[in-house]
Amino acid sequence: MASPIRYELLKTCSHTGARRGRVYTPHAVIETPVFMPVGTQATVKTLSPEELMDIGAQIVLSNTYHLHLRPGEDIVKGAGGLHRFMNWSRGILTDSGGFQVFSLSSMRKISEEGVEFRSHISGEKKFLSPEGSVGVQNALGADIIMAFDECPPYPAERQYVLDSLERTTRWARRSKAAHARPDDQGLFGIVQGGMEPDLRRRAAEELVELDFPGYAVGGLSVGEPKPLMYDILAYTTPFLPRDKPRYLMGVGAPDDLFEGVIRGVDMFDCVLPTRIARNGTVFTSKGKLVVRNAQYARDYRPLDESCDCYTCRNYSRAYIRHLLKAEETFGIRLTSYHNVAFLVRLMGRIREAIEKDSLLSFKADFYREFGYLD
Amino acid sequence: MASPIRYELLKTCSHTGARRGRVYTPHAVIETPVFMPVGTQATVKTLSPEELMDIGAQIVLSNTYHLHLRPGEDIVKGAGGLHRFMNWSRGILTDSGGFQVFSLSSMRKISEEGVEFRSHISGEKKFLSPEGSVGVQNALGADIIMAFDECPPYPAERQYVLDSLERTTRWARRSKAAHARPDDQGLFGIVQGGMEPDLRRRAAEELVELDFPGYAVGGLSVGEPKPLMYDILAYTTPFLPRDKPRYLMGVGAPDDLFEGVIRGVDMFDCVLPTRIARNGTVFTSKGKLVVRNAQYARDYRPLDESCDCYTCRNYSRAYIRHLLKAEETFGIRLTSYHNVAFLVRLMGRIREAIEKDSLLSFKADFYREFGYLD
Repeated sequence: MASPIRYELLKTCSHTGARRGRVYTPHAVIETPVFMPVGTQATVKTLSPEELMDIGAQIVLSNTYHLHLRPGEDIVKGAGGLHRFMNWSRGILTDSGGFQVFSLSSMRKISEEGVEFRSHISGEKKFLSPEGSVGVQNALGADIIMAFDECPPYPAERQYVLDSLERTTRWARRSKAAHARPDDQGLFGIVQGGMEPDLRRRAAEELVELDFPGYAVGGLSVGEPKPLMYDILAYTTPFLPRDKPRYLMGVGAPDDLFEGVIRGVDMFDCVLPTRIARNGTVFTSKGKLVVRNAQYARDYRPLDESCDCYTCRNYSRAYIRHLLKAEETFGIRLTSYHNVAFLVRLMGRIREAIEKDSLLSFKADFYREFGYLD
Repeated sequence: MASPIRYELLKTCSHTGARRGRVYTPHAVIETPVFMPVGTQATVKTLSPEELMDIGAQIVLSNTYHLHLRPGEDIVKGAGGLHRFMNWSRGILTDSGGFQVFSLSSMRKISEEGVEFRSHISGEKKFLSPEGSVGVQNALGADIIMAFDECPPYPAERQYVLDSLERTTRWARRSKAAHARPDDQGLFGIVQGGMEPDLRRRAAEELVELDFPGYAVGGLSVGEPKPLMYDILAYTTPFLPRDKPRYLMGVGAPDDLFEGVIRGVDMFDCVLPTRIARNGTVFTSKGKLVVRNAQYARDYRPLDESCDCYTCRNYSRAYIRHLLKAEETFGIRLTSYHNVAFLVRLMGRIREAIEKDSLLSFKADFYREFGYLD
């Protein structure tokens, strides 16, 4: 069976590991590197599908754990799948639920078979296995689905990471065997291995042997220092095939996008833009800005003076601050729109820079203005 | 000085008091009768100005009391006025704040000068007078502004209503005298008088003598039975000039729109569509529907099968119920959109029916389907 996912490498950067490519999926041809906004519960918080298209989002991520618990995959399947349920015609990726079981559930018991946990909504006992996770994802119908994995905490004992990695490989094999829609959905493997370079290599090699149409790097951005994350990433990606897409899970701050791309990553997702938007924090070309702050009460400039997104074209900091203080959800919608647009457009400029072989100078310019690493 | 507000009477209904007309304002020519969505805090909850335009909203109401307390009229004025602050290019009407002082503030002391009250936000002591209210409204810059009035509670002693009415007339005179932008903004008088027909008549006659460019009927829908409201309204409107618009304040349930129009009302506003939307209740052509209810979990039909609004074209009851249960604000946005569209479009059909002289049969058809008065 041919995988419905194909990667085309268009250009490699002369000075870094950055790749300009294309991921072909059933619903979308995705220009990479790409930032994927997160729609945990079948909606990117506060935004409509039309707004996401206007922003230029090519693919969104949705969470298997959340949708399994509510509304349940049967209801989504009954609607004709997740695309129709949420009225999104472009790409969708669902994660495996593994990470959420570990980060959200109050109680969990890992066995070879899978993970027993309590629903963070109802408190009910639940069980998720590789077969279960893939079954849920087959019902949801995303373009790209993920093998069920265990994400070890940071820090973790080497022995724990090793045992977990071996189990994750066995689970990857079971995930592949259970995949009932290989013509419609591409199943990616997830490289774990904690902060141990040799275990990362081993994980990558074992997964590559299983021949997935794409590979994710999981278990990073879990509390470790950023330089360590970048080192582990740089060490890991060379063990992944050049002709398959590489996805760095749960990572998406502006600096992480640059550093990930430079280390050969093609796909990113992160809740950061919508999460900080809800607290009234926005990205600007000159760094983060907390628009809730009193200093913006009479500031009639747009959030970012060099941005031409819907929010920045039409609304002032003073208005947005007023909406946030007054607890009007339209304010969060405006900050969310801007933040998601900021990252999606930043990635568009990163793609252009790779094409022009000017990624490092673009990065230097961006950092100088944005103020990171100062 | 010529008022910037002009009313054109296009047609009167042969069988009722209904009027088909046009209200000319600085920012919009408004086809009447009209339903005005409420944007209390300079935003119609959850909706963008573009969505309101798509819905066909011609004019929105914003609340002087709320904007005075937060962000303060100076900040709005600094933005270039309320239209620019909230990015709304069509009509805006601001109320006087009188009603909110009585309904929201924890403490109030009425004197001839005005009303002392405590801010429901900060607890601070505040004072609002006719001059103060009109001053705030001049700073906000709406197309139509309202004289400062007192809205007596229901039930109320006749003597209280009489004293209040006399004060409201004196306040209307002071409001008019204080109006600093009579070329840019039209100031409407508000007819009070409780449930006492002769006091309603007296209030109307006294205000008409002051020659406002439009008249509101206030103090209805404050707890009295609907038949009483309709009777008082029917008694009152004949004392208002035919060549001026008539506005029934705070009223806008579907049946109230019919009954108000039939009694000669041209303008309506109500928080009902957005308020019930937040609780997961929507209007449909077959009556209200509580889409939060479990029975809609697998219902893939649109909210209203005979509606072609954005929400109904693209989303199912099952999806919207999921969003509401998951506390995703996009769900409230979808129900709010539909409910506001429902009332705006209903009013459009009422205008058409007046034009075709078929209002009563349209009303009978609507009630039969909607289930009101069954």
